[in-house]
Amino acid sequence: MSSIPNTSSLRTLVRDDKPKEECAIFGIFNSQEAANFTYLGLYSMQHRGQESSGIVSSDGEHLYRYAGMGLVANIFTEGKIRELTGTAAIGHNRYSTTGASFLRNAQPLRVESHLGPIALAHNGNLVNSWEVRSQLEKEGSIFQTTIDSEVIVHLMARSGETDLLSALSSALKKVRGAYSLVVLTKNQLIAVRDPNGFRPLVMGRREDGSIVFASETCAFDITDTTYERDVEPGEMIVVDRTGTRSFYPFPPAKPALCIFEYIYFARPDSNIFGESVYKVRKALGNQLAQELPVEADVVIPVPDSANIAALGYSEASGIPFQSGLIRSHYVGRTFIEPDQKIRDFGAKIKYNVVKNVVDGKRVVIVDDSIMRGTTSRKIIKMIRNAGATEIHLRVSAPPTISPCYYGIDIPTHKELIAATHTIEEIRKYLRVDSIAYLSVDSMHKAVSEHRGGGFCNACFTSDYPVEFQSDMGNQKSLFKEYEVEERV
Amino acid sequence: MSSIPNTSSLRTLVRDDKPKEECAIFGIFNSQEAANFTYLGLYSMQHRGQESSGIVSSDGEHLYRYAGMGLVANIFTEGKIRELTGTAAIGHNRYSTTGASFLRNAQPLRVESHLGPIALAHNGNLVNSWEVRSQLEKEGSIFQTTIDSEVIVHLMARSGETDLLSALSSALKKVRGAYSLVVLTKNQLIAVRDPNGFRPLVMGRREDGSIVFASETCAFDITDTTYERDVEPGEMIVVDRTGTRSFYPFPPAKPALCIFEYIYFARPDSNIFGESVYKVRKALGNQLAQELPVEADVVIPVPDSANIAALGYSEASGIPFQSGLIRSHYVGRTFIEPDQKIRDFGAKIKYNVVKNVVDGKRVVIVDDSIMRGTTSRKIIKMIRNAGATEIHLRVSAPPTISPCYYGIDIPTHKELIAATHTIEEIRKYLRVDSIAYLSVDSMHKAVSEHRGGGFCNACFTSDYPVEFQSDMGNQKSLFKEYEVEERV
Amino acid sequence: MSSIPNTSSLRTLVRDDKPKEECAIFGIFNSQEAANFTYLGLYSMQHRGQESSGIVSSDGEHLYRYAGMGLVANIFTEGKIRELTGTAAIGHNRYSTTGASFLRNAQPLRVESHLGPIALAHNGNLVNSWEVRSQLEKEGSIFQTTIDSEVIVHLMARSGETDLLSALSSALKKVRGAYSLVVLTKNQLIAVRDPNGFRPLVMGRREDGSIVFASETCAFDITDTTYERDVEPGEMIVVDRTGTRSFYPFPPAKPALCIFEYIYFARPDSNIFGESVYKVRKALGNQLAQELPVEADVVIPVPDSANIAALGYSEASGIPFQSGLIRSHYVGRTFIEPDQKIRDFGAKIKYNVVKNVVDGKRVVIVDDSIMRGTTSRKIIKMIRNAGATEIHLRVSAPPTISPCYYGIDIPTHKELIAATHTIEEIRKYLRVDSIAYLSVDSMHKAVSEHRGGGFCNACFTSDYPVEFQSDMGNQKSLFKEYEVEERV
Amino acid sequence: MSSIPNTSSLRTLVRDDKPKEECAIFGIFNSQEAANFTYLGLYSMQHRGQESSGIVSSDGEHLYRYAGMGLVANIFTEGKIRELTGTAAIGHNRYSTTGASFLRNAQPLRVESHLGPIALAHNGNLVNSWEVRSQLEKEGSIFQTTIDSEVIVHLMARSGETDLLSALSSALKKVRGAYSLVVLTKNQLIAVRDPNGFRPLVMGRREDGSIVFASETCAFDITDTTYERDVEPGEMIVVDRTGTRSFYPFPPAKPALCIFEYIYFARPDSNIFGESVYKVRKALGNQLAQELPVEADVVIPVPDSANIAALGYSEASGIPFQSGLIRSHYVGRTFIEPDQKIRDFGAKIKYNVVKNVVDGKRVVIVDDSIMRGTTSRKIIKMIRNAGATEIHLRVSAPPTISPCYYGIDIPTHKELIAATHTIEEIRKYLRVDSIAYLSVDSMHKAVSEHRGGGFCNACFTSDYPVEFQSDMGNQKSLFKEYEVEERV
Repeated sequence: MSSIPNTSSLRTLVRDDKPKEECAIFGIFNSQEAANFTYLGLYSMQHRGQESSGIVSSDGEHLYRYAGMGLVANIFTEGKIRELTGTAAIGHNRYSTTGASFLRNAQPLRVESHLGPIALAHNGNLVNSWEVRSQLEKEGSIFQTTIDSEVIVHLMARSGETDLLSALSSALKKVRGAYSLVVLTKNQLIAVRDPNGFRPLVMGRREDGSIVFASETCAFDITDTTYERDVEPGEMIVVDRTGTRSFYPFPPAKPALCIFEYIYFARPDSNIFGESVYKVRKALGNQLAQELPVEADVVIPVPDSANIAALGYSEASGIPFQSGLIRSHYVGRTFIEPDQKIRDFGAKIKYNVVKNVVDGKRVVIVDDSIMRGTTSRKIIKMIRNAGATEIHLRVSAPPTISPCYYGIDIPTHKELIAATHTIEEIRKYLRVDSIAYLSVDSMHKAVSEHRGGGFCNACFTSDYPVEFQSDMGNQKSLFKEYEVEERV
Repeated sequence: MSSIPNTSSLRTLVRDDKPKEECAIFGIFNSQEAANFTYLGLYSMQHRGQESSGIVSSDGEHLYRYAGMGLVANIFTEGKIRELTGTAAIGHNRYSTTGASFLRNAQPLRVESHLGPIALAHNGNLVNSWEVRSQLEKEGSIFQTTIDSEVIVHLMARSGETDLLSALSSALKKVRGAYSLVVLTKNQLIAVRDPNGFRPLVMGRREDGSIVFASETCAFDITDTTYERDVEPGEMIVVDRTGTRSFYPFPPAKPALCIFEYIYFARPDSNIFGESVYKVRKALGNQLAQELPVEADVVIPVPDSANIAALGYSEASGIPFQSGLIRSHYVGRTFIEPDQKIRDFGAKIKYNVVKNVVDGKRVVIVDDSIMRGTTSRKIIKMIRNAGATEIHLRVSAPPTISPCYYGIDIPTHKELIAATHTIEEIRKYLRVDSIAYLSVDSMHKAVSEHRGGGFCNACFTSDYPVEFQSDMGNQKSLFKEYEVEERV
Repeated sequence: MSSIPNTSSLRTLVRDDKPKEECAIFGIFNSQEAANFTYLGLYSMQHRGQESSGIVSSDGEHLYRYAGMGLVANIFTEGKIRELTGTAAIGHNRYSTTGASFLRNAQPLRVESHLGPIALAHNGNLVNSWEVRSQLEKEGSIFQTTIDSEVIVHLMARSGETDLLSALSSALKKVRGAYSLVVLTKNQLIAVRDPNGFRPLVMGRREDGSIVFASETCAFDITDTTYERDVEPGEMIVVDRTGTRSFYPFPPAKPALCIFEYIYFARPDSNIFGESVYKVRKALGNQLAQELPVEADVVIPVPDSANIAALGYSEASGIPFQSGLIRSHYVGRTFIEPDQKIRDFGAKIKYNVVKNVVDGKRVVIVDDSIMRGTTSRKIIKMIRNAGATEIHLRVSAPPTISPCYYGIDIPTHKELIAATHTIEEIRKYLRVDSIAYLSVDSMHKAVSEHRGGGFCNACFTSDYPVEFQSDMGNQKSLFKEYEVEERV
Repeated sequence: MSSIPNTSSLRTLVRDDKPKEECAIFGIFNSQEAANFTYLGLYSMQHRGQESSGIVSSDGEHLYRYAGMGLVANIFTEGKIRELTGTAAIGHNRYSTTGASFLRNAQPLRVESHLGPIALAHNGNLVNSWEVRSQLEKEGSIFQTTIDSEVIVHLMARSGETDLLSALSSALKKVRGAYSLVVLTKNQLIAVRDPNGFRPLVMGRREDGSIVFASETCAFDITDTTYERDVEPGEMIVVDRTGTRSFYPFPPAKPALCIFEYIYFARPDSNIFGESVYKVRKALGNQLAQELPVEADVVIPVPDSANIAALGYSEASGIPFQSGLIRSHYVGRTFIEPDQKIRDFGAKIKYNVVKNVVDGKRVVIVDDSIMRGTTSRKIIKMIRNAGATEIHLRVSAPPTISPCYYGIDIPTHKELIAATHTIEEIRKYLRVDSIAYLSVDSMHKAVSEHRGGGFCNACFTSDYPVEFQSDMGNQKSLFKEYEVEERV
């Protein structure tokens, strides 16, 4: 078992053993307070990205931009929101990796081109951006950021098209992968979802008639927006003073909605892909209990993401649900660990066990996903030390065996414990009495109680719906290592 | 009902309708990494104070101090921790009010006197500090901060005693009220709890022999400290190179442990006053269900503080527990509200309803306390708008009718809705179908299943165990209004 | 005289009535401490730009960049300098205007293109960048900054050339105007001066063999670099591991060295265009005294820029030199003026009169240039109030009557007092007893004592050596008004 | 000569070889914009202290305080000035040492006592504060800062007096040393100068009737204040709504005005001790030329402090004055020196030689004082390297042989080159062809042309007019070493 990833690098850097979402997007048109609503929408979708945030607004003449590093509530002041004048705006939250991050890469992108000023916010990941970028550079394009989204605006500028819609369609036909986009010009807001529909994108309307787009419906709740419908896979919706028009510029493709949004990413109070995340997550827990029962005294979740699945497990199994792990919400990005080793430091910074909930008990612990297994191992050790007599780990999804190339930052193949170890090896590494994952079929069964098929499950099956470049893993390192961090 | 407090001042300032704790304290002696452990302990007790934090360490020769505004994880860097050299340290978290707050008031206090350098961290509130301060000023003392704790060091300096222990005893005999203290000198660490024992203080030991004090045991968990016992009411424990000695310098007094620590403040994974907070909180929920049952489909808590009471209510009533309210943990201190009013803005910034959990359901919502009622009213409206057919509010404590003078920032009498309105008036204001509080007796009954008597319940009964000055309410405003905020 | 520019906008913004230089550049190749020397060079040329500074270094593999707003000594820390690894580096200081300024516009520019990573630092101004930019946008280029220099890298990327030198030559042949450039790639440093040689650029060598380029020789003094020669107008010098090569890719043009560098911009301890600035400046003062003598008791300069001309005036006239105006060096960008008007506030913030030097005296005050005349008027009033019996203003250059399009931020035609008023009107406005400027011929005569002809004197003659776009004045406002300032 | 102080610690810290002034003070009463005028006055006296600044204002009810680290123009914003309401204010600039400095020590001090709120700003140094402090601590006083001024407010608080004036008189009778003070209460402004009058303090009046006090008259010029008179040694002036009253509470003492104020500290455009600093400084230069003539081609000052003395030398000797050294005004507190040693780095950061001024010339260099000699040695080497054939150093004051205990930070006896070396040894160390200082008598003669006797010249004679504690040197280190720097 010597190949189990080692944890020594955790000394001062707190990182979760969870995948990272790549971004939230928001757009609004025809609102007297476009920037302020965008700010609230971004705030409500902070869970989808904590690295940087930005807003671009339009007053019909100019695009105004402001972006900063950190959390929405800290970046934007009343003064900044006031300066972002105009009746249309788009916004973006970027996710926080453990490595370097730069203000330069904050979205929305805003550029000047012969089409006039254009701003763009992108959720998802293009799989052929590296090829396209090389080709564009050969043709004389110059790049300023390291984000894949920049190729889209270059392709637009070089499309030869003189109207925005044609330029955007032309550009998107040249890229492959996952993209939910909002694009803002002086007088138009465009929302697009890639033909496979990897990432969510919803559309709503406020009482005052303004049109709103967001990654999740929780952004509608905070802005008093009424949900109308999802932007469809392959659909491009154009909003301007004359109203709303819908286009389908791409050849039809097989839907490939990201099932991980239901399992882990989205807020439980959101609806995405037309269904309540809470409901789906509970169904996964129910299914888990039915298929993989165990005799036990108490069910506890790994908070907060597995809370609802654990409630589902408790409901279906009849084993009482308890909040046996308490999670701290004051975690910073790094922690100063004493030289005298603290037991299970990396996990303790975030979680503590309620001893009397588990002491002398047979415990079922429910989690939604296991990547490297490092944090799980520590949590389980903490529960064991608190007196649990048996520990049974139940995971409300199949084993994660493959990275994602469509917008989720899942560890590489060799880091994923389930990609390189048998279930029994994982059980031993984690030191649990039993371990069980949902099967792929059961996962789909649970989800489809509520929401028909058409999901991407590549992280569980290696069955990638859209072909990608073989060297995609290297793409990220483009500037990363040799950028000296900007002052922010 | 015109006297119901108005909410218009909430426009940009997010404040919870919850009381505020005044501080966490931590102390450690004989550790190679005293400051680092203090930092971790303070981090784990961040819920007791988010305004400012400070650490003072001692290397036997000098006291080193560092303090800052904000959260522990942001204030202290590895460099700062390294500069806080020595084998003993104390630390303090200060709570965050909605008003001005100053670095000047950050604790631990550190002063120079004829007894040498002294640092002090205080949890609690003195009730005669204003009198004592006036008297000290008449005798020529000069004050630098607006915190009541400063009188203690003045009294020590003027005690005429030449050893620290006598000076501290002498000083504390002249003050009344609530104090759990840790005091650090060049070569001693002293922990004291007031004769009534209002605020908690626990003592533990690490494997390497170092002695640790903390407000709650969660600070022991993160520092691998084994709990030994509570510091007793009226006890003074002196730790130095020769070991640990215990003194009881005060006349015995009736125990008056703060029952609100169990109801709301302490972390559920902590033990205080010798008992698990989780266990007590669940017992309160059980009692609530038994005494105040209701026909309903679902029990939901106001997260996170009422989670455990709601689990208890669900357990005793058999009504399923659901996470029907999702709480955001990214809240900043202020928010920018659009001019177009957002419905229930103040509550939405923090909470969102999971529609499908409450839609068409009879909902029991469990909360632990209601101060002004403003946030509750909004939450209830949100649940109603989400489709709940009935809403029954159950509070796991009696009505809060009186402010606290012993270290909790409860609103004034005229702001407390239960102090000025009947239960039926509150029900109407909150627009619930039924409302019920635990009675004082039932609360004590539930607590005493686990932990014998001797509690202060003045906020529920106006029965104050220690006499206080009539003008205490004014004390806080001493410098507040006319201080121009320090740059931090 | 109602057309005299009004001063009311000076309330809180301190701006000098002096033109602003646009930038300093520095480059070094083959040095073990390239970034550190660049930092020192930029520090010594801080007078040429105080808005922002940046350094890009190369280690043969990657280009590392760091830039910030403000002064060199504040932007760069030891840590940042250490991160800028490699044996070659270029740097840039940007000037500070009174309007908005953005980190986005800080130089050196660094881009990715098919030629690999390229960094560029530019002193000067292109006069056809707006045309070129429009054309490039039409062809699909996207712009990220508002600086004219960005067109150069776009032209390089689109040149079709595959080697850097050809690409750069090709690009520069398409632009017109003033440019002294340093360009850095992975393994080359290129220095170029435009065919007319508007802006200075010197070349030197350190004892360790490294090659250095800088705008002024003061940057050589601080880095122990020995001056070798000027980069010639139209010359391109390529430095790489194989040595130094010189090219003249452009058709020859008439030299048009900026004479204002001698009059005002350059440090008096620098040599530029092959001659000591101090020597030229003193010669201008000598000439001024010979041609425009006056009976007086004392000669005082407007410090610091007119110090040397005033010494020259004193020397040639025999009237004693005194430091009758003391200048403050602690000036920030804005000042808070009381509502009760302070007499001559804008000037007092910077200058104070030494009363006993001027009281009862006939004073000659020497200045090097007058733009709007607003500050001069205040200074003269201060001297009058201090008791001067006569005040004679002598200017060591001709009247400034036209803006500069080659890299100096001179006010517009209608703001320049000498463009719209007769000398007698100016005298009345400034309230001096006599006023005299050097004639254009005398200026050239004084300069040519030391340095032969070939100067651009367009600001004094409207005789522009290189044709420019008619709408150049608008170019600057491109993004300016609608950018929300970045957080820095 | 091995005892010559070594310069290696200069690697990154730029420190001048000049004494440091301890502070500027300012006070104003009965002005509608008291804080704004105080801000301007402090700005104009920035040369007397660059470490921190603070202002306390009074509106008759409360005292408002704001202080920060750094320069006046950076610390105070329009918002802060507006918050400092009221019609009276005092302010303070603190000097910048090379060591640690803390916001805690920023003045004005503001305390609460039985006399009500009191603020105090102090220029000078008490020589028995250590004794007094120990005694006060024995009596139970507690200290919060490390500044000597804090004993004054403690003595006031403990005086037993109930009116401010008596309390202040009583307190000041117990201290010895140098103090120019402004003290502010709710409705009074008091200005005091110690009986010997070490430090300057001037009084003026604005047209609107407000009374102003300042360390130097340059603060009057910027605030349109008319100078009325000096506060006399031993005088206490009380300003309140009823007018201005003068008291002389102390026994008469021999005047001991600090002669170094004329030689180095004060701005040349100020009047202090009733005479123009410019005039005195020029007289010193004249005297120097008459007594210590030399055949030479050019006179150059070490700028800026020796400028006027050099003009005086030139005037009296007939040798032409030139600005042969150019001084940078962009110096930060630290600099990053390359590992490859830069010749004379410490001096080059600040000064550069104008080669053609000194090349082939016999140079007289005029300085006002030499402490360690380290910077002088480098400057001289730079001039030699630039081609000077002879270098003659002339110092416009006697050799500095003793530290100051009255408010100037002069190096210790063993660091002062003139205290431990003969003139010839100094000449050799500095490598000059000749060196000459003014004699003590000549200095007094030059000063007394303009201003009668009564000066303290202890730094030149070791003749201390007021007895001091033998261990004064240690006083400063009280907290210094073991304070962890506050976040600012």
